[in-house]
Amino acid sequence: METMITGKALVLACSAIGAGLAMIAGIGPGIGQGYAAGKGAEGVGRQPEAQGDIVRTMLLGAAVAETTGIYGLVIALILLFANPLVKLLG
Amino acid sequence: METMITGKALVLACSAIGAGLAMIAGIGPGIGQGYAAGKGAEGVGRQPEAQGDIVRTMLLGAAVAETTGIYGLVIALILLFANPLVKLLG
Amino acid sequence: METMITGKALVLACSAIGAGLAMIAGIGPGIGQGYAAGKGAEGVGRQPEAQGDIVRTMLLGAAVAETTGIYGLVIALILLFANPLVKLLG
Amino acid sequence: METMITGKALVLACSAIGAGLAMIAGIGPGIGQGYAAGKGAEGVGRQPEAQGDIVRTMLLGAAVAETTGIYGLVIALILLFANPLVKLLG
Amino acid sequence: METMITGKALVLACSAIGAGLAMIAGIGPGIGQGYAAGKGAEGVGRQPEAQGDIVRTMLLGAAVAETTGIYGLVIALILLFANPLVKLLG
Amino acid sequence: METMITGKALVLACSAIGAGLAMIAGIGPGIGQGYAAGKGAEGVGRQPEAQGDIVRTMLLGAAVAETTGIYGLVIALILLFANPLVKLLG
Amino acid sequence: METMITGKALVLACSAIGAGLAMIAGIGPGIGQGYAAGKGAEGVGRQPEAQGDIVRTMLLGAAVAETTGIYGLVIALILLFANPLVKLLG
Amino acid sequence: METMITGKALVLACSAIGAGLAMIAGIGPGIGQGYAAGKGAEGVGRQPEAQGDIVRTMLLGAAVAETTGIYGLVIALILLFANPLVKLLG
Amino acid sequence: METMITGKALVLACSAIGAGLAMIAGIGPGIGQGYAAGKGAEGVGRQPEAQGDIVRTMLLGAAVAETTGIYGLVIALILLFANPLVKLLG
Amino acid sequence: METMITGKALVLACSAIGAGLAMIAGIGPGIGQGYAAGKGAEGVGRQPEAQGDIVRTMLLGAAVAETTGIYGLVIALILLFANPLVKLLG
Amino acid sequence: METMITGKALVLACSAIGAGLAMIAGIGPGIGQGYAAGKGAEGVGRQPEAQGDIVRTMLLGAAVAETTGIYGLVIALILLFANPLVKLLG
Amino acid sequence: METMITGKALVLACSAIGAGLAMIAGIGPGIGQGYAAGKGAEGVGRQPEAQGDIVRTMLLGAAVAETTGIYGLVIALILLFANPLVKLLG
Amino acid sequence: METMITGKALVLACSAIGAGLAMIAGIGPGIGQGYAAGKGAEGVGRQPEAQGDIVRTMLLGAAVAETTGIYGLVIALILLFANPLVKLLG
Amino acid sequence: METMITGKALVLACSAIGAGLAMIAGIGPGIGQGYAAGKGAEGVGRQPEAQGDIVRTMLLGAAVAETTGIYGLVIALILLFANPLVKLLG
Repeated sequence: METMITGKALVLACSAIGAGLAMIAGIGPGIGQGYAAGKGAEGVGRQPEAQGDIVRTMLLGAAVAETTGIYGLVIALILLFANPLVKLLG
Repeated sequence: METMITGKALVLACSAIGAGLAMIAGIGPGIGQGYAAGKGAEGVGRQPEAQGDIVRTMLLGAAVAETTGIYGLVIALILLFANPLVKLLG
Repeated sequence: METMITGKALVLACSAIGAGLAMIAGIGPGIGQGYAAGKGAEGVGRQPEAQGDIVRTMLLGAAVAETTGIYGLVIALILLFANPLVKLLG
Repeated sequence: METMITGKALVLACSAIGAGLAMIAGIGPGIGQGYAAGKGAEGVGRQPEAQGDIVRTMLLGAAVAETTGIYGLVIALILLFANPLVKLLG
Repeated sequence: METMITGKALVLACSAIGAGLAMIAGIGPGIGQGYAAGKGAEGVGRQPEAQGDIVRTMLLGAAVAETTGIYGLVIALILLFANPLVKLLG
Repeated sequence: METMITGKALVLACSAIGAGLAMIAGIGPGIGQGYAAGKGAEGVGRQPEAQGDIVRTMLLGAAVAETTGIYGLVIALILLFANPLVKLLG
Repeated sequence: METMITGKALVLACSAIGAGLAMIAGIGPGIGQGYAAGKGAEGVGRQPEAQGDIVRTMLLGAAVAETTGIYGLVIALILLFANPLVKLLG
Repeated sequence: METMITGKALVLACSAIGAGLAMIAGIGPGIGQGYAAGKGAEGVGRQPEAQGDIVRTMLLGAAVAETTGIYGLVIALILLFANPLVKLLG
Repeated sequence: METMITGKALVLACSAIGAGLAMIAGIGPGIGQGYAAGKGAEGVGRQPEAQGDIVRTMLLGAAVAETTGIYGLVIALILLFANPLVKLLG
Repeated sequence: METMITGKALVLACSAIGAGLAMIAGIGPGIGQGYAAGKGAEGVGRQPEAQGDIVRTMLLGAAVAETTGIYGLVIALILLFANPLVKLLG
Repeated sequence: METMITGKALVLACSAIGAGLAMIAGIGPGIGQGYAAGKGAEGVGRQPEAQGDIVRTMLLGAAVAETTGIYGLVIALILLFANPLVKLLG
Repeated sequence: METMITGKALVLACSAIGAGLAMIAGIGPGIGQGYAAGKGAEGVGRQPEAQGDIVRTMLLGAAVAETTGIYGLVIALILLFANPLVKLLG
Repeated sequence: METMITGKALVLACSAIGAGLAMIAGIGPGIGQGYAAGKGAEGVGRQPEAQGDIVRTMLLGAAVAETTGIYGLVIALILLFANPLVKLLG
Repeated sequence: METMITGKALVLACSAIGAGLAMIAGIGPGIGQGYAAGKGAEGVGRQPEAQGDIVRTMLLGAAVAETTGIYGLVIALILLFANPLVKLLG
């Protein structure tokens, strides 16, 4: 049984690599949100009476910072589960 | 059944890699927006009365910082779903 | 017994590399959450009476920062256990 | 059916990689605009009466910082939709 | 005895590389937890009476920061001991 | 139909890669102009009466910082639309 | 005597590379624990009476930071001494 | 029609890559001039009466910092439009 | 005498590369312990009476930071002297 | 017409790459001179009466920092216009 | 006389590369010990009466930081002079 | 006319790459001398009466920092104009 | 005269690359010792009466920091002049 | 005339690359000595009466920092002019 590597296999193999590369974007939100968490904890310690406001602001900002990480996840999931490239290959 | 790698497959495989590379841009907004979230939480802790203004400014700035991450997402989605390169290949 | 490398093997091999790449995203949350932990410990030392609030804020922020690391884990697990690319290969 | 990789396919495959590389430029504006957002939110917290001026300055500065990200998007879109290289190939 | 490289060997070889890549994520928690340890030791020196609280907060935060390192370990162990890719190869 | 990769195709493929590389220069102006935007917003908050001067200085400085990003755009556009290398190939 | 490279040899060769990659994780704990050591020594100099507490906190935090380095060591040792990939190769 | 890649094509293809590499130098002036713009805007805010002097100094300094970016542009333009390497190839 | 590269040679060659990679981990402890040494010398200059305590704390912390460097050394020595991969190759 | 790649073409192609690499040195002077420009503008704002001296010092220092960028330009120009390697090839 | 590359040559060639890689670890101690030297010189300038203690602490700390550099040297020397891999090759 | 790539061409091609690599060393002096220029301009603004001394010290220090950039230039010029490797090739 | 590349040539070629890699370690001591020189000059300016002590401490610390650079030099010299790998090749 | 690439040519080509790599070490001293020059100029501005001492200390420190750059130069010059590897090749 001798089968050569087909074009479909190459597309799918590169999709696996691409999904891995897309996740690397998570380094950014990880550092940024951690900075926000630290600043939030520092702020709550100094103004415990403003805790609700600080936490809400921190979470709101962190939610925005999350987006690019989610973009990476979305692209990776598309590459894995709804791989449109394979359909294009026909 | 022996099929060699076609040109179409190469284009699609490189599109998967390109989509992954495009998501790496998300490192920037992730760090930047996290910095904004931290500064916002710090500011709200110090001036709770200005919370609305601080949060609005923070979100406005973060929304602008989001753009390059969205550009990457757009290019990745185009590469995956509306891949115009395959049409050019004809 | 002479068998050449099949397309399926290439997809699976690249999935292993992709899973490893996806884990590298963990560098970000690791640095960020450690910063939050340090700021939290510093804050607790200065305002022990606000310990509960500081710790809760720190954990909340760190939980958000965790997300991109979890995204990487999810993608890696999918690549390993529910590898949809192999199914696409048919 | 045995078709080799044509020159057109190579050009289009490299265009996909090039579009991905061009998006990486988005790391810069992402970090820079996030810094501006943080500084803006900090400033609004300190001088709420100057909110309008601060936000306008922040957005003006961020709009300029956006440009290089847009350049990358433009080049990527040209590579994908109006690929002039393919026309040159004839 | 002349045996060529089989697909199974390629998958396993890439699993070894992938396991090594996944461990690199450990750079992040290492730096972050060390920062937390330094801040904790500094805090204990200044407020010895709050030692218990500081240490508990530091450990709690460091435990969260540990997670992405553990994710990398888990993926590496799966790649080595329960390699599901080989089973997929059939 | 078996056509090999021609020299023209190689030049055009490398032009696509080169255009992508040239856009990476945008990381610099993005970070720098964002710093200027942050400093400008901070300055306007402190001296609202000097807003006009601050904004003009910020924009003037950012305009200069923009240049290297524009250089990259110019080279990329030349590579794509007025590719002189193809003419040299004759 | 002419023997080609077997699949087993490829797996083992990649295991050696993977073991080396896994050790690079040690950069993180090295920097982090050194920061903790410096902060600890600084703290002991300022509050010699709290030496015991500072050192214990420093060591506790450093012990946690050690973990990801140990994970890398464990994976490397497994790759070298109990290489399960070779068994999978059968 | 089967034509192999000629030496001329290789020189021109590498010229495209070289032009892209040369533009990366623009990261430096972009960061540096942005720092100058920020410092200039800060200075104008503090000493509006010295605006002319500050702006002139900032522009003079930024003009010098521009040079290496222009060098890269010059080399890229030479590679594209007056490619002397092709003439040397004869 | 014409001998091709055997699998054993490939494993041993990759072991040499892996040993070199493993030593790169030494960058971390080198930076970290140097920071500790600087902080220790600074502390001794300020509180000479606490010299013993400072030095002991510094050395204790540096000893912990040393560990990941030693892990790298151990793996490298195993790869060189007790290479278990070769035995697995049988 | 089938011509293979000659040695002369390889030398000239590598000269194009080398010229591009040499321009990357411009990142250094760009950052450094921008720092000088910022410090100069800051200084002029604080001591407008010393403007001449500050600007002269700034330019003198920046002129020295320019040198390594010029070295890169010189080497790139030599590679392109007076390529001595081609003469050596004879 | 036509001899192909033997396995022994590959092992020795990779040993040379590995020895070079192992020396890169010296970047860490170089930066760290230089920091210690700067802090030591600063401390001696401020407390000349504590010179002996400061220098002794600095040297003690730097000696520990030296270790990972020595590890790299040891591995490189073993690779060059007592190369056990060649013996394993038999 | 079919000529293969000769050894001489390979040496000269690698000399072009090596000359480009050697110029990258210019990043260091560029950043360092720019820092010196900024510190010099700052100093002159504060102590205009010490201008001569400050400038002379700055230039002296920058001249020393220039050396490694000149070393790179020297090696690149030797590689290009007095290439001794070609003579060794005989 | 047609001679193929011998194993000896491969070992020697890789030795040249290895020697170049080993010298990169010099980046560390260069930065570190420069920091020490700056701190020393600063200290001498503040406490001219302690000049002897400061300079001696600075040189002592820098001498230790020099070691890893010397290690790299030693390995490079061994690779070039007393290449033991060639002897092992026999 | 068809000559293949000889081993001697490979050694010499790699020597050119190695010489270029060795010069990259110059980044370190360039940054470090520039820092020293800046600190020296700052010091002379503050204590003009200590100019001689400051400059002498700065130059002494910078001379030590120069060494690793010189090591790289020495290795590069040896590779180019007294290439002992070619002699070993015999």
